[in-house]
Formats: sequence, structure tokens, C-alpha cells
Amino acid sequence: MERLLIESALGRVRAALERGDYDQAVAIIESLRPADQAEVFSELDEEDQETLLPRLSPEDSADILEELDEEEAAELAQTLPPRELSRIVDEMEPDEAADLLGDIPPEQAEAVLASLEDPEEVRPLLVHPDDTAGGLMTSEFLALRRRTTVAEALEAIRRWHPEGHVVDQLFVVDRNGVLRGTVSLRQLIMADPQQRMVDIMDPEVISVPAGTDQEECARLMDRYDLIALPVVDEHHRLLGVITVDDLVDVLQEEVTEDIQRLGGAQPLGGPYLDTRVTRVARSRIGWLLLLFVTETLTGTVLRLFEHELAAVVSLTFFIPLLIGTGGNAGSQTTSTIIRALAIGDIDLGDALRVLWHELRVGLLLGIAMGTIGYIRALAWGTSHAVASAVATALLMIVLWANVVGSTLPLLASKLHIDPAIVSGPFMSTLVDATGLLIYLSVAKLILGI
Amino acid sequence: MERLLIESALGRVRAALERGDYDQAVAIIESLRPADQAEVFSELDEEDQETLLPRLSPEDSADILEELDEEEAAELAQTLPPRELSRIVDEMEPDEAADLLGDIPPEQAEAVLASLEDPEEVRPLLVHPDDTAGGLMTSEFLALRRRTTVAEALEAIRRWHPEGHVVDQLFVVDRNGVLRGTVSLRQLIMADPQQRMVDIMDPEVISVPAGTDQEECARLMDRYDLIALPVVDEHHRLLGVITVDDLVDVLQEEVTEDIQRLGGAQPLGGPYLDTRVTRVARSRIGWLLLLFVTETLTGTVLRLFEHELAAVVSLTFFIPLLIGTGGNAGSQTTSTIIRALAIGDIDLGDALRVLWHELRVGLLLGIAMGTIGYIRALAWGTSHAVASAVATALLMIVLWANVVGSTLPLLASKLHIDPAIVSGPFMSTLVDATGLLIYLSVAKLILGI
Repeated sequence: MERLLIESALGRVRAALERGDYDQAVAIIESLRPADQAEVFSELDEEDQETLLPRLSPEDSADILEELDEEEAAELAQTLPPRELSRIVDEMEPDEAADLLGDIPPEQAEAVLASLEDPEEVRPLLVHPDDTAGGLMTSEFLALRRRTTVAEALEAIRRWHPEGHVVDQLFVVDRNGVLRGTVSLRQLIMADPQQRMVDIMDPEVISVPAGTDQEECARLMDRYDLIALPVVDEHHRLLGVITVDDLVDVLQEEVTEDIQRLGGAQPLGGPYLDTRVTRVARSRIGWLLLLFVTETLTGTVLRLFEHELAAVVSLTFFIPLLIGTGGNAGSQTTSTIIRALAIGDIDLGDALRVLWHELRVGLLLGIAMGTIGYIRALAWGTSHAVASAVATALLMIVLWANVVGSTLPLLASKLHIDPAIVSGPFMSTLVDATGLLIYLSVAKLILGI
Repeated sequence: MERLLIESALGRVRAALERGDYDQAVAIIESLRPADQAEVFSELDEEDQETLLPRLSPEDSADILEELDEEEAAELAQTLPPRELSRIVDEMEPDEAADLLGDIPPEQAEAVLASLEDPEEVRPLLVHPDDTAGGLMTSEFLALRRRTTVAEALEAIRRWHPEGHVVDQLFVVDRNGVLRGTVSLRQLIMADPQQRMVDIMDPEVISVPAGTDQEECARLMDRYDLIALPVVDEHHRLLGVITVDDLVDVLQEEVTEDIQRLGGAQPLGGPYLDTRVTRVARSRIGWLLLLFVTETLTGTVLRLFEHELAAVVSLTFFIPLLIGTGGNAGSQTTSTIIRALAIGDIDLGDALRVLWHELRVGLLLGIAMGTIGYIRALAWGTSHAVASAVATALLMIVLWANVVGSTLPLLASKLHIDPAIVSGPFMSTLVDATGLLIYLSVAKLILGI
């Protein structure tokens, strides 16, 4: 839907730029919503971007820098003189401003900070790592005292002019800044103007320390349907607030990483088509090599059984089939377990129950696949002995793949490694080599070679 | 964090039930937050659940039924007499109520609907498929007319007592119910009491038709940072509103499906440990079989080259290594492309650019892997000829895997199939058979056998 709108805007902006009609180009961009502004902007040439940005209002420039991919925003910001950039950063939401300043050279960031209207809104946010509650939070929130009346609170809202869209929730703190409760705008409207915050606030407010991992913050907000999650220091003093739009971004980011890791690639951390070919290749070569080296184990196993393979060449025909089926069964298990871990369906304490679950699933699947494998092998005209070896190996390999596929993610989680890293191609490779060992040992026993 | 709280509450509830002290058990559950209530409740025996549910207040029962997994909620609801269930459903959010009624037998659902306080709040929601905008929306929203004043709007909010937590956004409609704009609570508070909705509303409101896919709704809400997305009929009349907590649930659901499909399993649609072993096995056997049948292609290819394999047994040693590397390179590509499609980084129009990107990445990776494969083969004491065949095959297979891995998800998307379905194990299996064909053909040519 919005694609057409963007193509059309892009065409008109380009035409205006070609004519040298900058005002027209600016007008077209300013008529769009922030997300669309950023998309149109990011498809322009760098040169055009640098021409246009200083001509846009600081508010629109701020929106665009907020919506652009982090790297693109940082690159663009670096082309601006510090004073110009300060005017834009002044209009950005403090958490986005802090992220941007963290991505440009420290000297430039310092120069920008020095000429901000209110550097104290941004500076404290710079000390927290990006992927923690402190790195996600914004310092734009309204904190009221317990004895504040509803009428005073409404007046405070009217006087407040935050940069970004903020959540409709107020926070109540005591004289030391310690978080005591929250009040929603709806509660304010429903209440008597003379009531005090302490009478209407919800004192059981869920909060997190600044060092909390962003994934844990997202999980809490999702579980308890929160639109805002307050962040506190070690004395439970209110530092900032994570808003629901950050939650969605975190979820998307974590999922992208999980899926790319499941596929055995380092997360790119940027839009696909904008990532250079050499960078994509670099993000993949490490895993590919590591898996290659691990996979050479299969060659070692096969050389161990060189004599048997030379004696019965038909054993070779089933190699890819057997290890492929093992890999598939393992992938099914792994993807289920990783996801159950991610959404909190299971945790480490459930390890034994998970294993027992997968052992039984594996047994059922193994029996089914073994039976079908036996029939298929006979249909190819293979001898009964080889068919029996294939069937027995299939049963054992599927069972084994389910055990490995469920144990690996749990083990990784126990060792505080992202389960997705060790569990995709790594699992397949492990099952390949061990599957071969199972198959050829079984064949050797059954065929007596 | 909340795990400890839940274990403790669960222990105390069980102890109370054992003593026959139902009031105490009820009191413990009522002291928890809805998500925790549901978790404690779902870990109780069915018998205890059926004992407790009628003793809880309808509000708390409603919260629990809303938070429970869909199937569990439906099973539990079916144990209640219709009048009892109606009292609970009355307290549920209309969209959740409609989902529950859709999951229980139609006669029971009808009986419940008949004794609801306001069946017209729920009935219209029953006609929309679960995974569309109509299935997600709630009928609980405040719609005002354009000439309504701010003072009247504030009064309407005070008189309104919705069941669930609703979003802090009002909608403005004309006399035909056609959506004209939206107003936030903050705007109301900021405005003069005598201003009219038409003066303060934002007329450029993003809305979706009721049949819109839930994934598209989630994407729009994410892109434009919406906390509420109005749903309209073909005449643009306001039917309902999708709220931000639904967005998160949809994103989680879609991602779970994607990850399970990437692993080659049908989505379970329920919590892992609560899903019966036979059901898990059923969800996997179909794919496992299909992949098994496809994978027998590898046997066919190997039989074609029986003569060559018998002549040079050392060719066999590299089979798992070569097809494994092809599978890994393909998985890396596929997972990157699927995710780029899902978050809108690329679309079908980019197909050629994607292919060109992956061809170059594949060439780089193929040259690297070929070189390393050559060295590794020589180190194993393999002849120069076989090592050359392995290296050439590696280069071609990695290149080919990148092409297949990027084309398959795009093709699936073009055919309106979820790219995750055809792209995980399916891609590996396809690359296995074709990779073998490449390897053995190259070997035949180079070795002249």
C-alpha cells in the first residue's frame, strides 16, 4: 500500500531536485509521515540527502534521523556541522538522540552535546549499553509527587511539551525520586480534581533496574501488557521509561538475530540490500568454515569404514538420505525448543521433561521412518540385510537427532549462549557425523562385514 | 523473577486446596496479576481448576480465561454450565470473548450468547476469521461525533466503563458511522473545554478493512508507531479497533510459526510441554516423510554414478562434506532473505537485485571454500585429480546453493506461500540432490572415469 505512495513521492522529489527546485522537494517530503519520509529519504543519493537535510525543518530532520537505519543516520549526521546537528538533535526523542550520539565519533558527539539546549536530558542516557533497559529508556516522562492534586497534574500535562510521542502514563515519586506508583491519563480524567496522586495511583508498579537485558524488558511488557516500563537505579529511583514502541523494535531485532543465527549467519545489523557483498560474505564465511571443519568429521568416519563401503557399494546410496533425515528431525526439534525457550514456555528447570518428551516423539517418528525406509530400500531392489540395516539406522538416528536437537539449545542456554547460534547448522553437522557412525556400525554388525 | 513468585503461590494454593480451604486458595489467586493468575491456574490439576473457577469472581475468572492458552481456556470453559460461563464472558474483553466462543461447541456458544448482558458487543466479532483485522479487533472503543465538545468528550470518558484495558484514543465518526479522525486523551486534556472534536482531531487516520491479514496490521502498527488501529467496513464505517497488546501477540505468533516452519515442523499452536507427544509427532511426520521422499533423489543420483563410485571409493568420503556445505550456504541465504522479506527490507520487485547480490556473495564464498577444500583434500592424501574435482564442485555448489536459497523464498512469496515453509529443510534437501549431481558430474569429467 504505502509502497506506491513512496515510489510516487520519490519520483516527484527526484524530479524537483533535477529542476533545482529544492523548496518543492522539501514540501513533498514534509507532507509524508515520518516512516515514509525516512524511506523516501534513504532511497535518494547521498549527495541529494546532504543537499536536502539542512533545508528541512529541524523537526522533520529529527523524524528522519530517528526512523532511518542506525548506520545510515550516523553517516548522514557526520556530514553536518555540529551546530546544525545540534539543532536537529534538540528535536529528537532523548533515547534516539543518545543512540545517534553513540554512533558518531566522540569528538563530534561532544561538540553536539555542548551546544544542545538541554544536554542533561541526553547525557545520562549515554552511559548505558544500547541493549539494556538504560539504553532503551527515554528521559521524557512526567513524574509527580504523591500530594500533587489531579487538577495540578492536568495543569502539568498542559504545560509539558515533549519532543516525541510519549505514553499516556504518569509516574509518582517521593522526595528522593523513588518510584511509588503510576497514574494513567484515563484515571486522571475519571478522578475528582481535588484528589491527590496517592489516592488514585496504582502502587504496584512493575519496574526494572537499568542494567536489565532488553529481551527481558520486552518479555515483561508483553506478559503484563504494559505500555510503559519504568527504569530505576539501585535505590529504586526513577531514571527513565521504556515505551511500547521500543518493545516492538526490540522484539523484531531479537527475532531477526535468532532467525539469521538459526540459518548459521551472523546477524547483519542493517537492511539487506544496503549491506555490501563483502560484508555479507564476511558475516557468513566464519560459520561456513567452522561447519566445514566439523563436517570433515564425516570424511573421517567414512574412511574408517572404507573396507565395508568398497565391499557393499549400495550402502553408499543411503548415506545422504540417512543423514538428511537425521538433520531434518533435529531441525524440527531445535526450532521448537528454541522458540519455546524464547517465549518462556519452557525454562532450564524443564530440561528433563523436555528430554523425556522428545525421546517419546523421537521413538514414534523413528519407528515410522524406519518402517518406511525398509520398504523403500526393498523397492530399490536392495537386499533384506541392507534394508534392515537402513531401517535400524533410521530409527536410531531419528531418536538420536531428537535428543541432540533438544539438548543443544538447553545446554547453550545454560551456558548463557544464544541457543540459536549453536542449534541450526551446527546441530545438523553434529548429527551428520554421528549419524554416519551409527549407520555404518549398524550395517557392519547386521551384514557381518 | 516471576517464576519464584509463581512457584510460591502455586505451593500455597495447593496446600490450601488439600486442607479444603477454598477461600484461602481463591484469596491467593486473586492477589496475583492476571498473567500470573493464569500461569498458576494452568499448573493446577484439571479437577482443582474445575473446583476453583466457579468460586473466583467473574472478573478474575475472565482475566484467567483471557490469559490462558486458547485450547486450555476452551476445555475449561466447556466444563462450566452456560449461565456460569455467561457471567464470566460478560466480563471478558469482547475480542477475547469472541475468540473463546469460536473455540467451544456451537450449541454451547449459542447458549452463552443468549444469556449475555450485551450479546451485540460480541456477536459481530464472531463472523471474522481469527487471523484478520476483524478477528483481532475489539468492539470496545469510544466513537464521538465531529461537533462533540471537549467537555462532552471528557464526560463520555467518565461515564464509560469498558471491561478490558483500552487504549487512550478516541475516534470521531460522522452520522453514518464513517471514520473521520482520531483524538488522543492528551489532546483532550490540552484542549479548551469548548473546542469541538473536528477542531482538534487528526483527520489523517490510518485504518484497515476487516479482511486485512493480521500480519499486515502488525506491520502497519509497527511502521507508524500506532497504539490503536481502527478497522472499517467497505463504506469506511468504523467497526472496531486493534490495540497495541494484540500487535505484540500477533508478532510473537507469526515469528513462532516462521521459526517452526524454518525447522520443518508444523506450528504447534500451543505451549510445548502441554502438547501431547502424539500431536507433536503428527505435526512433524508429514514434513519428515515428504523430505524423505525428496531426499531419495540423492539415492537415485548415486545409483547413476555407481560405476564411478566403485572405481574411486575416495569420492565417497567427500559426499556428506559437499552436500553439508551446500546446505549450510543455502540456509544462511534463506534465513537472511526470509527475514528481509518479513520486515519489509525487500519485496518481490527486488528479486533481480537480490539474486545479483547473492550471486556475488556466493562467488566469494565459493572461491574461499573451494580453495580450503582443495587444501583439506590434499592433506587427507587424496590425489590431485580428486582434490581438483572436490574444489571445483565446492565452488559450484556454494554458488548454486546461494541461488536456490535466495530464489526459493521469493518464489514462495510470489505464490502466496509462507516463505518459511518451503525454505528450511526443503531447500537443504533440494541442494543435497542437485549438489551430488554437480559433484559426481564434475568428478567424472575431471577424472575421466
